[in-house]
Amino acid sequence: MSKPIEERGAVRQAKPFLHRIRVWWGDCDPAKIAYTANIPAWALEAIEAWWEHCAGVDWYQINLDRKTATPFVHMKMDFRSPVTPRHILECKVTLKRLGHRSVTVTVMGYQNGILCFEGEFVQVFVDAGTMKPHTPPPDILASIRAKAFDGE
Amino acid sequence: MSKPIEERGAVRQAKPFLHRIRVWWGDCDPAKIAYTANIPAWALEAIEAWWEHCAGVDWYQINLDRKTATPFVHMKMDFRSPVTPRHILECKVTLKRLGHRSVTVTVMGYQNGILCFEGEFVQVFVDAGTMKPHTPPPDILASIRAKAFDGE
Amino acid sequence: MSKPIEERGAVRQAKPFLHRIRVWWGDCDPAKIAYTANIPAWALEAIEAWWEHCAGVDWYQINLDRKTATPFVHMKMDFRSPVTPRHILECKVTLKRLGHRSVTVTVMGYQNGILCFEGEFVQVFVDAGTMKPHTPPPDILASIRAKAFDGE
Amino acid sequence: MSKPIEERGAVRQAKPFLHRIRVWWGDCDPAKIAYTANIPAWALEAIEAWWEHCAGVDWYQINLDRKTATPFVHMKMDFRSPVTPRHILECKVTLKRLGHRSVTVTVMGYQNGILCFEGEFVQVFVDAGTMKPHTPPPDILASIRAKAFDGE
Repeated sequence: MSKPIEERGAVRQAKPFLHRIRVWWGDCDPAKIAYTANIPAWALEAIEAWWEHCAGVDWYQINLDRKTATPFVHMKMDFRSPVTPRHILECKVTLKRLGHRSVTVTVMGYQNGILCFEGEFVQVFVDAGTMKPHTPPPDILASIRAKAFDGE
Repeated sequence: MSKPIEERGAVRQAKPFLHRIRVWWGDCDPAKIAYTANIPAWALEAIEAWWEHCAGVDWYQINLDRKTATPFVHMKMDFRSPVTPRHILECKVTLKRLGHRSVTVTVMGYQNGILCFEGEFVQVFVDAGTMKPHTPPPDILASIRAKAFDGE
Repeated sequence: MSKPIEERGAVRQAKPFLHRIRVWWGDCDPAKIAYTANIPAWALEAIEAWWEHCAGVDWYQINLDRKTATPFVHMKMDFRSPVTPRHILECKVTLKRLGHRSVTVTVMGYQNGILCFEGEFVQVFVDAGTMKPHTPPPDILASIRAKAFDGE
Repeated sequence: MSKPIEERGAVRQAKPFLHRIRVWWGDCDPAKIAYTANIPAWALEAIEAWWEHCAGVDWYQINLDRKTATPFVHMKMDFRSPVTPRHILECKVTLKRLGHRSVTVTVMGYQNGILCFEGEFVQVFVDAGTMKPHTPPPDILASIRAKAFDGE
């Protein structure tokens, strides 16, 4: 997940974006660890925070204000170590591929320096009205290109 | 919560509507009982099931198809006994008051014959576009009047 | 909800504790506002943050490490204005009453200076094993007394 | 996902288990479709229902009564078509592989005959106390073998 990626012919290293999540009592099940279904939900929260940081719009704004929806078409996750309220959950979101039709990111979740989960998520761009494939507004793509990578 | 209610001058006894909920592992916290925040969520689910039964429309339909929103303005709940996955959660929803501007229901939740929680919930009727007060479509009010009460 | 309270004979003004919540896309329903059931869940999150701040233990710690559970027995909420992702949700949690058997707090939620909801919540202290009434450890009560009030 | 599977040397066709889920208003986001994070949560609910049917114990019982935990180590999902409250969500859970250390199932979710999502999920068996690898009680494995397959 950490290899350089090719984007428009140039190999560049995307920069991980850090999103911190506080795990609460109610997130845990009787095994005293976070219930599994919360983990993809947190990964999505981290991805939305990455969008806000990199694209300058959260999903509420891109949908309602920019008429672009970004539904998920794929996710895969590996669960490595339990998540608990004892430590902050540090989620690192990294752009893997950005095209005109889709965006792929990886999410790695750590607590106290230990990798708890890792996953890969693919979203596609569609028109928020028709749900047909749709290239997102150029300023949004440009913002992601500028903020998801280290300066060249 | 079980007294007869006055509706349009006539005292009638509303009929409890039963909605059954399966409690799962992930609904429970490390105390091995359902996390508190799930309980108002289940009460709302039971109320939406009551709407579907009595009004003939769920909240998705009344909002999107009939342009009427029914936001909550008040809830109060007492928690009497823990909820667990050991038994089905039987929620009884009873109409307490139906006006042209609001609807009040009570919800009582039982497991294995024991009262686990009880609450009272008030919704108002608004136009789904403007969010201004709005009398719901007459067929919906008529359906609730027909189905929420025992025959006169 | 903002009146001075009597605690052990002395009238003192409890200090509101501020807990900020980021509202996300997935918290909203098709009416484009936070789904009602999220609101008591956020109030509980704010109360757990108040516990961590005032008692020095979150619910995971007080349950697992101190063998004291704090189940809710009552909640009431009024919903004043919709919650959306457009602004941070600022929750102010204020101690209303602290006894040896229960604790009552109020929660007021604001977005952009507008009161969105207010509520009152009662927890009781029980032994985490037997679930029987139980006075919490004296250091926890002392910590709440020290941190929930302005200095005398 | 529908090929015969090899289990203990014999190729047998596992039988899909059907679990029905009612999708509610609050499950949907402002795009008027179920929020993505609900979908893995529903798949997990369907898998727990499959456990109850095939193993004779839900996750609450297997953990608390049988001291066996079944944490997930992997999931992957493809989202094919939006989920809404207009139709029941029919989840078909099929055993793909059962060993002494792990169990793999597939979940396919349909609404109105249309495939909405499909996924694969891997759980491992551990001791509920130590979280170390652990072969589940023989009666539970035998029950899964008896109920997850068509008669030989």
